[in-house]
Amino acid sequence: MPGSFKKIGLVGRSQQNGLDVVLQELLALLEQREHEVILEDCLGELVPDAAVLLGSRDEIGQHSDLVIVAGGDGSLLSAARTMAKYDTPVLGVNRGRLGFLTDITPDQIAEQIPRVLDGDYVTESRFLLDAHVERDGEIVAKADALNDVVVNSGTSAQMIEIELTVDNAFVYRQRADGLIVSTPTGSTAYSLSGGGPIMHPSLDAIVLVPMFPHALSSRPIVVDGNSEIRVDILQRNRIHPPVTCDGQVNMTARPGDSVVIRKKPHVLSLLHPVGHSFYASCRDKLRWGDALVD
Amino acid sequence: MPGSFKKIGLVGRSQQNGLDVVLQELLALLEQREHEVILEDCLGELVPDAAVLLGSRDEIGQHSDLVIVAGGDGSLLSAARTMAKYDTPVLGVNRGRLGFLTDITPDQIAEQIPRVLDGDYVTESRFLLDAHVERDGEIVAKADALNDVVVNSGTSAQMIEIELTVDNAFVYRQRADGLIVSTPTGSTAYSLSGGGPIMHPSLDAIVLVPMFPHALSSRPIVVDGNSEIRVDILQRNRIHPPVTCDGQVNMTARPGDSVVIRKKPHVLSLLHPVGHSFYASCRDKLRWGDALVD
Amino acid sequence: MPGSFKKIGLVGRSQQNGLDVVLQELLALLEQREHEVILEDCLGELVPDAAVLLGSRDEIGQHSDLVIVAGGDGSLLSAARTMAKYDTPVLGVNRGRLGFLTDITPDQIAEQIPRVLDGDYVTESRFLLDAHVERDGEIVAKADALNDVVVNSGTSAQMIEIELTVDNAFVYRQRADGLIVSTPTGSTAYSLSGGGPIMHPSLDAIVLVPMFPHALSSRPIVVDGNSEIRVDILQRNRIHPPVTCDGQVNMTARPGDSVVIRKKPHVLSLLHPVGHSFYASCRDKLRWGDALVD
Amino acid sequence: MPGSFKKIGLVGRSQQNGLDVVLQELLALLEQREHEVILEDCLGELVPDAAVLLGSRDEIGQHSDLVIVAGGDGSLLSAARTMAKYDTPVLGVNRGRLGFLTDITPDQIAEQIPRVLDGDYVTESRFLLDAHVERDGEIVAKADALNDVVVNSGTSAQMIEIELTVDNAFVYRQRADGLIVSTPTGSTAYSLSGGGPIMHPSLDAIVLVPMFPHALSSRPIVVDGNSEIRVDILQRNRIHPPVTCDGQVNMTARPGDSVVIRKKPHVLSLLHPVGHSFYASCRDKLRWGDALVD
Repeated sequence: MPGSFKKIGLVGRSQQNGLDVVLQELLALLEQREHEVILEDCLGELVPDAAVLLGSRDEIGQHSDLVIVAGGDGSLLSAARTMAKYDTPVLGVNRGRLGFLTDITPDQIAEQIPRVLDGDYVTESRFLLDAHVERDGEIVAKADALNDVVVNSGTSAQMIEIELTVDNAFVYRQRADGLIVSTPTGSTAYSLSGGGPIMHPSLDAIVLVPMFPHALSSRPIVVDGNSEIRVDILQRNRIHPPVTCDGQVNMTARPGDSVVIRKKPHVLSLLHPVGHSFYASCRDKLRWGDALVD
Repeated sequence: MPGSFKKIGLVGRSQQNGLDVVLQELLALLEQREHEVILEDCLGELVPDAAVLLGSRDEIGQHSDLVIVAGGDGSLLSAARTMAKYDTPVLGVNRGRLGFLTDITPDQIAEQIPRVLDGDYVTESRFLLDAHVERDGEIVAKADALNDVVVNSGTSAQMIEIELTVDNAFVYRQRADGLIVSTPTGSTAYSLSGGGPIMHPSLDAIVLVPMFPHALSSRPIVVDGNSEIRVDILQRNRIHPPVTCDGQVNMTARPGDSVVIRKKPHVLSLLHPVGHSFYASCRDKLRWGDALVD
Repeated sequence: MPGSFKKIGLVGRSQQNGLDVVLQELLALLEQREHEVILEDCLGELVPDAAVLLGSRDEIGQHSDLVIVAGGDGSLLSAARTMAKYDTPVLGVNRGRLGFLTDITPDQIAEQIPRVLDGDYVTESRFLLDAHVERDGEIVAKADALNDVVVNSGTSAQMIEIELTVDNAFVYRQRADGLIVSTPTGSTAYSLSGGGPIMHPSLDAIVLVPMFPHALSSRPIVVDGNSEIRVDILQRNRIHPPVTCDGQVNMTARPGDSVVIRKKPHVLSLLHPVGHSFYASCRDKLRWGDALVD
Repeated sequence: MPGSFKKIGLVGRSQQNGLDVVLQELLALLEQREHEVILEDCLGELVPDAAVLLGSRDEIGQHSDLVIVAGGDGSLLSAARTMAKYDTPVLGVNRGRLGFLTDITPDQIAEQIPRVLDGDYVTESRFLLDAHVERDGEIVAKADALNDVVVNSGTSAQMIEIELTVDNAFVYRQRADGLIVSTPTGSTAYSLSGGGPIMHPSLDAIVLVPMFPHALSSRPIVVDGNSEIRVDILQRNRIHPPVTCDGQVNMTARPGDSVVIRKKPHVLSLLHPVGHSFYASCRDKLRWGDALVD
């Protein structure tokens, strides 16, 4: 329905080249259509002439009917956790090349954005992960991720020894550089370069990818999306392993701690133009058909 | 409930070393407990002194409350499709080493089988795949699989060119030795040696593993278990690609044909002793913790 | 030296689109420079107006000072074995996209070919493999390869069991789909899609790549280029494994046979324009920097 | 010759369980045979009753005709660089399980050590790598390695961007977690868990293994053992990448620095009992034939 997206939030990362042009086009289009717009405050300097309301990411999440993230997959990744919290749908516009999450390119703005605003779109639910560190039965740190949670040794000179438990079933004790716990959304990111499978976004599953495992027969494992994943940092480790969520170091564990990961109750509602195809993004981003053996 | 498994079928492959000993122990145990037993006719010669009813695999599937497969994973694989058809639960007994599907070893027969017969067991549903070959809109061949359907060039000197479609969405055109379409059950078999992930048996998902793909960026893809997978054999191929179900050549396609694969309506009910762990089978079979980089 | 390449052979595969244009340009250029030219007889129909000597591939190899292969890597592959036999240097011209072996593109012919003919080039030695099948101590078949020798089961429904011996040292007994034995030249072809490493062309080494090995800890092994590699086809196999050289089925082994592979005494002299870079070919052909994880 | 190993050095790491028993047996055997023995000073406390000369690792390297390393591959790794400097041959005795480098087990000491001391052994040359960090044309740090030199981001939240040059030929610009540069000796260690090939110890080659490369088509590359490998740390990196030699952080580079790696002039002379087989170590350590699919 045309009326459903009255208030539109505009979010992004200010340092990106060319973002000002994209923002100007978006603002002009939204003004002309008489939407109320809130711009993320850090972006104000990029469009100094725009008479537009500024707000924090949280304010935008809270008050918008739709948030347009301008930038790349990284920008959407960083906005996703806030928007999921407020149950605000998100639409991604790229500055340049297509992304897996931001699938409207600048030259499609004029054609695609009005369509979406007129109600012509597809909604996809992407689940997020909640991770916390347990120490002596207490939760000492929490963070969340749309792509992946990575537990690793944090240093290039040592391996980490962990025990992995899924839904209270012991999986293995392992020496490795670390473990990647990835959603389907993250399966085309870091997990993929570590040998994990591509998982269709609609899949309710989590993949566990060992990083440089000592045991050559250790392979990626795909488990149910509702599983509780527990990574026990064995006491014998001499390192304080960082726990990375979507590529940010959010928490540091100690020997004896457990990192517990499970699906977040809130999902991200990601909008796509009609006709969007996950596999088309794969073909384009991964250059299928291009990177050929002889 | 003790009464629930009145009639027991006994199934296996007669050529296996040591199968006679296992059968004798099972028959003695079942006789003592006064179950009605039907033995697969090909096994009769292994236990010539047994006064027992013989039957075909289909008769056994139709008339038994439980079928015990004696042998290895291969034996259970070959019996699974029949038993799924008649909705008859299956229990696997191995001759020697543990299998992924046959998880009672000979020395556990005396302890574990009575427990299961007394109702102390866990039931797991394993889905199967239906595959058929379409030519000019007609189905020209059909087969089914518990592990995997493999479409390949059938010859070591040529690649096959296919187009892959999942739920009517085009995935890619690919040159490769072939494509493995595997269930979670098959994910620890051929698919695994081709670089596919391990999938927990409870997962409702199918993995598509390219075999020696021309495009180095082509990777295993995990899709929903209810997907319709269509493999179009391009007209330009000069080969007649065999379609292999669970390692048997069941069908041969031609250039221009499509191989269509989807979940079978019937599932296999696989029984396990209480305490069974999928990950324990992985640890044992894949020697996790053993095959170590220095 | 300009005088060194007096007689030039022109070789290719007649079915290729656009080959006639390339041949015409090459013939005009060679005629103008007053080289003697022998054209492979199968190519005569592509340039019906050319007054040029025709000859078989063997005659060309025997009588030419330089052979120009027009086509792609596949064309050069098929000509390489003949030219190595006569110690005749080879230069590759591609019809379209760059190849690993044919590194002059059509639009570079006018600039690069005269330079090479004037003596401005780099020579690279590429070694080939000799393979033969031994049965009861007798050699029953022989073939050679520039890229790779592949021993496999030849059928999609069965694995092959082999024992691998390198320089009389037992390596392993293995169940797999097969084994790829590749030169550095072949390391960017089939071997690469099977997980083998890229080997610099100057390397005196052979890589052994297991195909879908049953043992997950089985990995590609790089051995000295002068090694004798022996693949014993175990008696227990029920298949007659084809032995494929450069993608052609050349020989068929039986259970009990041995396939013996070692470096060929003759090498292929491959000419490149000055400035040629193996890594540039890799970057272009494998799209390094392109097929990106997000 | 029996007389050739007059002075024997004994080296190891004192914290290892069971090392005292191995040392006692070795000391008794050497005393009985009237060899002069120098014990690494840190090991003195493990054999308090032994009347034996103590010395530093350097003194031992300088004055011994043969050094026996008691422990595991890690102990030999740490002693190798010193012994190579003094051109002193090394023999490895393991405490427990076989190693790739330490191939005499405790129960073989009585039989194998006298044989080696009597001149019945095989000598293998293992080359080492020299690595240094260049900044503004100056060498600011140096280190060496028997297994591998690893350049990585040093933190789990960021990738490193490098340019790789081999013998002045540009290979690629790459975003990844890092790069492993490994000798044949190191090819069965960290490099292997990163997807590198196994390289026979006699091979004069170096393998370059990208760690979690952004480009999916990036693969391990094997180059000549005499190559100069240059890893330029691009200015745009915001990290100070650690350079790890044999698992020890030895140096830290900065954006703009280059890490240069080439073969060390000195080699390690590694002795083995007659009949030693590299492939037997692989079969045992990597459990070939054991870690089986299905």
